[in-house]
Amino acid sequence: MSRPAHRRPEYQKINKDLFVLTYGALVAQLCKDYEKDEDVNKYLDKMGYGIGTRLVEDFLARSCVRRCHSYSEIIDIIAQVAFKMYLGITPSVTCNNSSRNEFSLILDKNPLVEFVEELPPGRSSLCYCNLLCGIIRGALEMVHLAADVTFLQDRLKGDSVTEIGITFLKKLDEKKYRRKK
Amino acid sequence: MSRPAHRRPEYQKINKDLFVLTYGALVAQLCKDYEKDEDVNKYLDKMGYGIGTRLVEDFLARSCVRRCHSYSEIIDIIAQVAFKMYLGITPSVTCNNSSRNEFSLILDKNPLVEFVEELPPGRSSLCYCNLLCGIIRGALEMVHLAADVTFLQDRLKGDSVTEIGITFLKKLDEKKYRRKK
Repeated sequence: MSRPAHRRPEYQKINKDLFVLTYGALVAQLCKDYEKDEDVNKYLDKMGYGIGTRLVEDFLARSCVRRCHSYSEIIDIIAQVAFKMYLGITPSVTCNNSSRNEFSLILDKNPLVEFVEELPPGRSSLCYCNLLCGIIRGALEMVHLAADVTFLQDRLKGDSVTEIGITFLKKLDEKKYRRKK
Repeated sequence: MSRPAHRRPEYQKINKDLFVLTYGALVAQLCKDYEKDEDVNKYLDKMGYGIGTRLVEDFLARSCVRRCHSYSEIIDIIAQVAFKMYLGITPSVTCNNSSRNEFSLILDKNPLVEFVEELPPGRSSLCYCNLLCGIIRGALEMVHLAADVTFLQDRLKGDSVTEIGITFLKKLDEKKYRRKK
Protein backbone atom coordinates (compact mmCIF):
# COMPACT_ATOMS: atom_id res chain seq x y z
CA MET A 1 0.00 0.00 0.00
CA SER A 2 2.69 2.48 -0.93
CA ARG A 3 2.26 5.79 -2.63
CA PRO A 4 2.25 6.04 -6.42
CA ALA A 5 4.97 8.11 -8.04
CA HIS A 6 2.61 10.32 -10.01
CA ARG A 7 -0.42 11.98 -8.49
CA ARG A 8 -2.60 14.60 -10.04
CA PRO A 9 -1.91 17.98 -8.54
CA GLU A 10 -5.40 19.47 -8.24
CA TYR A 11 -7.05 19.97 -4.89
CA GLN A 12 -10.10 17.71 -4.98
CA LYS A 13 -12.99 18.23 -2.65
CA ILE A 14 -15.68 15.85 -1.51
CA ASN A 15 -18.70 15.94 0.77
CA LYS A 16 -17.43 15.27 4.24
CA ASP A 17 -20.24 13.05 5.58
CA LEU A 18 -18.75 9.94 3.99
CA PHE A 19 -15.46 10.67 5.76
CA VAL A 20 -17.12 11.37 9.09
CA LEU A 21 -19.12 8.12 8.99
CA THR A 22 -16.12 6.09 7.84
CA TYR A 23 -14.10 7.53 10.70
CA GLY A 24 -16.87 6.47 13.06
CA ALA A 25 -16.64 2.92 11.67
CA LEU A 26 -12.87 2.96 12.26
CA VAL A 27 -13.26 4.07 15.89
CA ALA A 28 -15.99 1.46 16.46
CA GLN A 29 -13.71 -1.23 15.04
CA LEU A 30 -10.84 -0.21 17.33
CA CYS A 31 -13.23 -0.26 20.30
CA LYS A 32 -14.03 -3.85 19.37
CA ASP A 33 -10.34 -4.68 19.04
CA TYR A 34 -9.05 -3.03 22.21
CA GLU A 35 -10.68 -3.31 25.58
CA LYS A 36 -8.93 -0.33 27.18
CA ASP A 37 -9.71 3.22 26.07
CA GLU A 38 -6.02 4.07 26.48
CA ASP A 39 -5.12 1.46 23.87
CA VAL A 40 -7.73 2.78 21.42
CA ASN A 41 -6.42 6.31 21.98
CA LYS A 42 -2.84 5.17 21.45
CA TYR A 43 -3.75 3.31 18.30
CA LEU A 44 -5.72 6.23 16.84
CA ASP A 45 -2.74 8.48 17.54
CA LYS A 46 -0.40 5.99 15.87
CA MET A 47 -2.65 5.69 12.80
CA GLY A 48 -2.94 9.47 12.65
CA TYR A 49 0.83 9.80 12.86
CA GLY A 50 1.19 7.63 9.75
CA ILE A 51 -1.48 9.66 7.93
CA GLY A 52 0.15 12.96 8.95
CA THR A 53 3.53 11.92 7.59
CA ARG A 54 1.89 11.23 4.22
CA LEU A 55 -0.46 14.25 4.11
CA VAL A 56 2.18 16.86 4.87
CA GLU A 57 3.97 16.77 1.54
CA ASP A 58 0.78 17.38 -0.42
CA PHE A 59 -0.30 19.98 2.09
CA LEU A 60 2.91 21.96 1.61
CA ALA A 61 2.66 21.64 -2.17
CA ARG A 62 -1.00 22.63 -2.38
CA SER A 63 -1.17 25.28 0.29
CA CYS A 64 1.95 27.13 -0.91
CA VAL A 65 2.68 28.24 2.67
CA ARG A 66 5.91 30.10 3.19
CA ARG A 67 8.66 29.14 5.60
CA CYS A 68 7.58 29.86 9.17
CA HIS A 69 9.86 31.68 11.60
CA SER A 70 8.05 31.04 14.86
CA TYR A 71 5.84 28.47 16.55
CA SER A 72 3.02 31.04 16.45
CA GLU A 73 3.20 31.20 12.68
CA ILE A 74 3.13 27.40 12.47
CA ILE A 75 0.08 27.16 14.71
CA ASP A 76 -1.70 29.77 12.60
CA ILE A 77 -0.99 27.76 9.45
CA ILE A 78 -2.34 24.61 11.11
CA ALA A 79 -5.49 26.38 12.27
CA GLN A 80 -6.22 28.63 9.32
CA VAL A 81 -4.95 26.61 6.37
CA ALA A 82 -4.71 22.92 7.32
CA PHE A 83 -7.90 22.60 9.40
CA LYS A 84 -9.78 24.64 6.82
CA MET A 85 -8.51 22.47 3.99
CA TYR A 86 -9.03 19.08 5.59
CA LEU A 87 -11.98 19.57 7.93
CA GLY A 88 -13.61 22.76 6.68
CA ILE A 89 -13.25 24.56 10.03
CA THR A 90 -10.90 27.19 11.46
CA PRO A 91 -10.12 26.67 15.15
CA SER A 92 -9.14 29.69 17.21
CA VAL A 93 -5.65 29.72 18.65
CA THR A 94 -4.37 30.59 22.12
CA CYS A 95 -0.81 30.68 23.38
CA ASN A 96 -0.59 29.15 26.84
CA ASN A 97 2.84 30.12 28.18
CA SER A 98 5.36 32.94 28.13
CA SER A 99 8.05 30.98 26.31
CA ARG A 100 5.52 30.67 23.46
CA ASN A 101 5.85 26.98 22.75
CA GLU A 102 2.53 25.82 24.23
CA PHE A 103 -0.60 26.49 22.22
CA SER A 104 -4.21 25.43 22.06
CA LEU A 105 -6.50 24.99 19.09
CA ILE A 106 -10.07 25.65 20.21
CA LEU A 107 -12.73 23.95 18.09
CA ASP A 108 -16.18 25.44 18.55
CA LYS A 109 -17.54 22.72 16.36
CA ASN A 110 -15.93 19.48 15.40
CA PRO A 111 -17.14 17.91 12.15
CA LEU A 112 -15.68 14.52 13.08
CA VAL A 113 -18.30 14.07 15.81
CA GLU A 114 -21.24 15.31 13.79
CA PHE A 115 -22.95 11.93 13.85
CA VAL A 116 -21.94 11.22 17.46
CA GLU A 117 -24.13 12.22 20.37
CA GLU A 118 -22.06 10.74 23.15
CA LEU A 119 -19.18 8.38 23.79
CA PRO A 120 -20.07 4.67 23.56
CA PRO A 121 -21.14 3.06 26.88
CA GLY A 122 -18.19 2.24 29.14
CA ARG A 123 -15.83 4.32 26.98
CA SER A 124 -15.57 7.45 29.09
CA SER A 125 -11.81 7.82 28.55
CA LEU A 126 -11.98 7.45 24.80
CA CYS A 127 -10.41 10.34 22.86
CA TYR A 128 -12.73 9.83 19.91
CA CYS A 129 -10.82 12.21 17.63
CA ASN A 130 -7.32 11.21 18.69
CA LEU A 131 -6.46 10.56 15.04
CA LEU A 132 -6.22 14.35 14.69
CA CYS A 133 -3.50 14.56 17.36
CA GLY A 134 -1.50 11.87 15.59
CA ILE A 135 -1.91 13.59 12.23
CA ILE A 136 -0.63 16.91 13.60
CA ARG A 137 2.26 15.18 15.39
CA GLY A 138 3.21 13.21 12.27
CA ALA A 139 2.99 16.19 9.95
CA LEU A 140 5.09 18.36 12.28
CA GLU A 141 7.73 15.68 12.63
CA MET A 142 8.11 15.57 8.85
CA VAL A 143 9.11 19.24 8.94
CA HIS A 144 11.53 18.43 11.77
CA LEU A 145 9.43 19.70 14.64
CA ALA A 146 8.79 17.49 17.66
CA ALA A 147 5.57 18.18 19.52
CA ASP A 148 3.25 16.71 22.10
CA VAL A 149 -0.31 16.86 20.80
CA THR A 150 -3.22 15.87 23.05
CA PHE A 151 -6.86 16.67 23.71
CA LEU A 152 -7.16 19.01 26.69
CA GLN A 153 -10.95 19.41 26.48
CA ASP A 154 -13.58 17.48 24.57
CA ARG A 155 -17.24 18.30 24.09
CA LEU A 156 -17.98 14.58 23.97
CA LYS A 157 -16.78 14.48 27.58
CA GLY A 158 -18.99 17.35 28.66
CA ASP A 159 -16.53 20.22 28.18
CA SER A 160 -17.86 23.41 26.66
CA VAL A 161 -15.37 23.33 23.77
CA THR A 162 -12.99 20.90 22.19
CA GLU A 163 -9.36 21.91 22.75
CA ILE A 164 -6.25 20.36 21.25
CA GLY A 165 -3.03 21.23 23.09
CA ILE A 166 0.20 21.42 21.08
CA THR A 167 3.52 21.76 22.90
CA PHE A 168 6.60 22.17 20.74
CA LEU A 169 9.48 20.30 22.32
CA LYS A 170 12.58 21.33 20.39
CA LYS A 171 13.80 21.34 16.85
CA LEU A 172 14.64 17.84 15.78
CA ASP A 173 18.28 17.24 14.98
CA GLU A 174 18.10 17.03 11.22
CA LYS A 175 21.03 14.65 10.82
CA LYS A 176 19.70 12.35 13.48
CA TYR A 177 16.28 12.46 11.88
CA ARG A 178 17.71 11.50 8.51
CA ARG A 179 19.65 8.59 9.99
CA LYS A 180 16.47 7.25 11.56
CA LYS A 181 14.56 7.22 8.25
CA MET B 1 -22.87 6.84 18.73
CA SER B 2 -26.30 7.79 17.48
CA ARG B 3 -27.23 10.65 15.26
CA PRO B 4 -28.10 14.07 16.68
CA ALA B 5 -31.57 15.39 16.06
CA HIS B 6 -30.44 18.68 14.54
CA ARG B 7 -27.83 18.89 11.83
CA ARG B 8 -26.90 21.87 9.79
CA PRO B 9 -28.28 21.59 6.30
CA GLU B 10 -25.42 22.98 4.19
CA TYR B 11 -23.36 20.76 1.96
CA GLN B 12 -19.86 20.93 3.42
CA LYS B 13 -16.86 19.97 1.38
CA ILE B 14 -13.41 18.90 2.46
CA ASN B 15 -10.18 17.84 0.80
CA LYS B 16 -10.49 14.15 0.11
CA ASP B 17 -6.93 13.01 0.93
CA LEU B 18 -7.69 12.78 4.63
CA PHE B 19 -10.64 10.51 3.86
CA VAL B 20 -8.65 8.36 1.45
CA LEU B 21 -5.82 7.83 3.96
CA THR B 22 -8.23 7.18 6.82
CA TYR B 23 -10.02 4.61 4.70
CA GLY B 24 -6.64 2.97 4.04
CA ALA B 25 -6.06 2.79 7.80
CA LEU B 26 -9.46 1.15 8.24
CA VAL B 27 -8.74 -1.50 5.60
CA ALA B 28 -5.29 -2.14 7.09
CA GLN B 29 -6.87 -2.61 10.52
CA LEU B 30 -9.42 -5.09 9.17
CA CYS B 31 -6.61 -7.00 7.42
CA LYS B 32 -4.94 -7.29 10.84
CA ASP B 33 -8.21 -8.43 12.42
CA TYR B 34 -9.31 -10.97 9.83
CA GLU B 35 -7.05 -13.53 8.26
CA LYS B 36 -9.29 -14.35 5.29
CA ASP B 37 -9.86 -11.82 2.52
CA GLU B 38 -13.47 -12.97 2.32
CA ASP B 39 -14.03 -11.94 5.92
CA VAL B 40 -12.46 -8.51 5.36
CA ASN B 41 -14.64 -8.07 2.26
CA LYS B 42 -17.74 -9.12 4.17
CA TYR B 43 -16.93 -6.77 7.02
CA LEU B 44 -16.26 -3.80 4.72
CA ASP B 45 -19.59 -4.48 3.02
CA LYS B 46 -21.34 -4.65 6.39
CA MET B 47 -19.74 -1.39 7.58
CA GLY B 48 -20.63 0.24 4.28
CA TYR B 49 -24.23 -0.95 4.64
CA GLY B 50 -24.50 0.87 7.96
CA ILE B 51 -22.97 4.01 6.48
CA GLY B 52 -25.30 3.87 3.45
CA THR B 53 -28.39 3.65 5.61
CA ARG B 54 -27.30 6.84 7.38
CA LEU B 55 -26.05 8.78 4.34
CA VAL B 56 -29.15 8.30 2.24
CA GLU B 57 -31.42 10.65 4.15
CA ASP B 58 -29.00 13.56 3.84
CA PHE B 59 -28.31 12.66 0.26
CA LEU B 60 -31.99 12.86 -0.64
CA ALA B 61 -32.39 16.13 1.26
CA ARG B 62 -29.32 17.78 -0.24
CA SER B 63 -29.44 16.49 -3.77
CA CYS B 64 -33.14 17.29 -4.26
CA VAL B 65 -33.48 14.36 -6.67
CA ARG B 66 -36.96 13.61 -7.90
CA ARG B 67 -38.76 10.32 -7.59
CA CYS B 68 -37.28 7.77 -10.01
CA HIS B 69 -39.51 5.63 -12.21
CA SER B 70 -36.99 3.09 -13.45
CA TYR B 71 -33.84 1.31 -12.37
CA SER B 72 -32.00 3.20 -15.13
CA GLU B 73 -32.94 6.52 -13.57
CA ILE B 74 -31.77 5.30 -10.17
CA ILE B 75 -28.42 4.17 -11.53
CA ASP B 76 -27.95 7.53 -13.25
CA ILE B 77 -28.61 9.31 -9.95
CA ILE B 78 -26.07 7.08 -8.19
CA ALA B 79 -23.43 7.70 -10.86
CA GLN B 80 -24.01 11.34 -11.66
CA VAL B 81 -25.16 12.78 -8.35
CA ALA B 82 -24.08 10.50 -5.49
CA PHE B 83 -20.60 9.51 -6.74
CA LYS B 84 -19.96 13.11 -7.77
CA MET B 85 -21.03 14.40 -4.37
CA TYR B 86 -19.22 11.88 -2.19
CA LEU B 87 -16.16 10.89 -4.23
CA GLY B 88 -15.83 13.68 -6.77
CA ILE B 89 -16.08 11.33 -9.77
CA THR B 90 -18.79 10.34 -12.26
CA PRO B 91 -18.65 6.68 -13.28
CA SER B 92 -20.08 5.70 -16.65
CA VAL B 93 -23.08 3.38 -16.63
CA THR B 94 -23.88 0.30 -18.68
CA CYS B 95 -27.00 -1.85 -18.61
CA ASN B 96 -26.07 -5.53 -18.76
CA ASN B 97 -29.32 -7.38 -19.53
CA SER B 98 -32.53 -7.04 -21.50
CA SER B 99 -34.80 -6.98 -18.44
CA ARG B 100 -32.89 -3.84 -17.42
CA ASN B 101 -32.21 -4.70 -13.80
CA GLU B 102 -28.47 -5.41 -14.08
CA PHE B 103 -26.14 -2.47 -14.39
CA SER B 104 -22.47 -1.63 -14.08
CA LEU B 105 -20.77 1.50 -12.84
CA ILE B 106 -17.43 1.83 -14.62
CA LEU B 107 -14.84 3.85 -12.71
CA ASP B 108 -11.98 5.05 -14.88
CA LYS B 109 -10.31 6.36 -11.80
CA ASN B 110 -11.00 5.51 -8.20
CA PRO B 111 -10.03 8.14 -5.64
CA LEU B 112 -10.18 5.61 -2.79
CA VAL B 113 -7.08 3.84 -4.11
CA GLU B 114 -5.10 6.96 -4.89
CA PHE B 115 -2.48 6.16 -2.29
CA VAL B 116 -2.51 2.44 -3.05
CA GLU B 117 -0.20 0.92 -5.64
CA GLU B 118 -1.16 -2.70 -5.17
CA LEU B 119 -3.00 -5.03 -2.83
CA PRO B 120 -1.10 -5.93 0.35
CA PRO B 121 1.02 -9.12 0.09
CA GLY B 122 -1.05 -12.30 0.40
CA ARG B 123 -4.29 -10.36 -0.03
CA SER B 124 -5.07 -11.11 -3.66
CA SER B 125 -8.80 -11.65 -3.03
CA LEU B 126 -9.25 -8.43 -1.07
CA CYS B 127 -11.97 -6.13 -2.43
CA TYR B 128 -10.21 -3.03 -1.14
CA CYS B 129 -13.15 -0.71 -1.84
CA ASN B 130 -15.92 -3.07 -0.75
CA LEU B 131 -17.22 -0.39 1.60
CA LEU B 132 -18.67 1.29 -1.52
CA CYS B 133 -20.76 -1.80 -2.36
CA GLY B 134 -22.15 -1.87 1.16
CA ILE B 135 -22.93 1.85 1.06
CA ILE B 136 -24.87 1.52 -2.21
CA ARG B 137 -26.71 -1.57 -0.92
CA GLY B 138 -27.59 0.13 2.38
CA ALA B 139 -28.73 3.36 0.74
CA LEU B 140 -30.90 1.49 -1.78
CA GLU B 141 -32.49 -0.61 0.93
CA MET B 142 -33.53 2.56 2.75
CA VAL B 143 -35.55 3.55 -0.32
CA HIS B 144 -37.04 0.04 -0.39
CA LEU B 145 -34.91 -1.40 -3.16
CA ALA B 146 -33.07 -4.66 -2.68
CA ALA B 147 -29.90 -5.07 -4.72
CA ASP B 148 -26.79 -7.20 -5.02
CA VAL B 149 -23.77 -4.92 -5.26
CA THR B 150 -20.32 -6.38 -5.97
CA PHE B 151 -17.04 -5.57 -7.66
CA LEU B 152 -16.90 -7.22 -11.10
CA GLN B 153 -13.52 -5.74 -12.07
CA ASP B 154 -10.85 -3.99 -10.05
CA ARG B 155 -7.77 -2.16 -11.27
CA LEU B 156 -5.97 -3.22 -8.11
CA LYS B 157 -6.37 -6.80 -9.38
CA GLY B 158 -4.97 -6.00 -12.81
CA ASP B 159 -8.23 -5.25 -14.61
CA SER B 160 -8.25 -2.31 -17.01
CA VAL B 161 -11.10 -0.55 -15.18
CA THR B 162 -12.89 -0.80 -11.88
CA GLU B 163 -16.47 -2.02 -12.31
CA ILE B 164 -19.20 -2.22 -9.70
CA GLY B 165 -22.12 -4.48 -10.63
CA ILE B 166 -25.57 -3.61 -9.30
CA THR B 167 -28.43 -6.10 -9.74
CA PHE B 168 -31.83 -4.96 -8.55
CA LEU B 169 -33.67 -7.92 -7.06
CA LYS B 170 -37.23 -6.78 -6.52
CA LYS B 171 -39.08 -4.01 -4.76
CA LEU B 172 -39.00 -4.57 -1.04
CA ASP B 173 -42.38 -5.14 0.52
CA GLU B 174 -42.89 -1.79 2.23
CA LYS B 175 -45.06 -3.13 5.06
CA LYS B 176 -42.65 -5.96 5.75
CA TYR B 177 -39.79 -3.48 5.69
CA ARG B 178 -41.53 -1.25 8.19
CA ARG B 179 -42.20 -4.15 10.52
CA LYS B 180 -38.54 -5.11 10.44
CA LYS B 181 -37.41 -1.64 11.51
